[in-house]
Amino acid sequence: MYGLIGRMIAAPGKRDELAAILMEGTGAMPGCLSYIIAADPTQPDAIWITEAWDGKDSHAASLKLPAVQAAIARARPLIAGFDSRSETVPLGGYGLVKAG
Amino acid sequence: MYGLIGRMIAAPGKRDELAAILMEGTGAMPGCLSYIIAADPTQPDAIWITEAWDGKDSHAASLKLPAVQAAIARARPLIAGFDSRSETVPLGGYGLVKAG
Repeated sequence: MYGLIGRMIAAPGKRDELAAILMEGTGAMPGCLSYIIAADPTQPDAIWITEAWDGKDSHAASLKLPAVQAAIARARPLIAGFDSRSETVPLGGYGLVKAG
Repeated sequence: MYGLIGRMIAAPGKRDELAAILMEGTGAMPGCLSYIIAADPTQPDAIWITEAWDGKDSHAASLKLPAVQAAIARARPLIAGFDSRSETVPLGGYGLVKAG
């Protein structure tokens, strides 16, 4: 498995709008096992993104899906930056759901 | 919703053993929506734990479950420390699964 844990910083005041775009259609990505968007309660513009995939290739392929590319294009002007990004190797637990 | 993203450091050489304990019975915690254990590929003793709950109360209650208390007792000697811990407010996405 392949995972990512990152914190994205929205442009000022744009967190809700950015989060809504990130949450659209996240169930339609082949090989995605978990993709959870969370607000950071300590920083008003920060968004946590935690992802689990069946492998690194599935994550890379997802970035080429037309729906994902369209979402990225809409999200980009709302993103001020990333302040952390960690790759992980998910081992198991609860909530790893194979897309149907 | 309530979430946690943390990185735990296992005692040297004990990561696999600690991860196995953390993954036991994670589906049986009321209000748990996601609980994923991942290895850190850059640090041989580090484990990422990402959690989503229907509320902070469910997380607090889980720590009092007999099975969780027993797991904590077994895990404690294998834990060297925590090097990050962030509370989050999960907003949505894919893989938030209500325990049955």
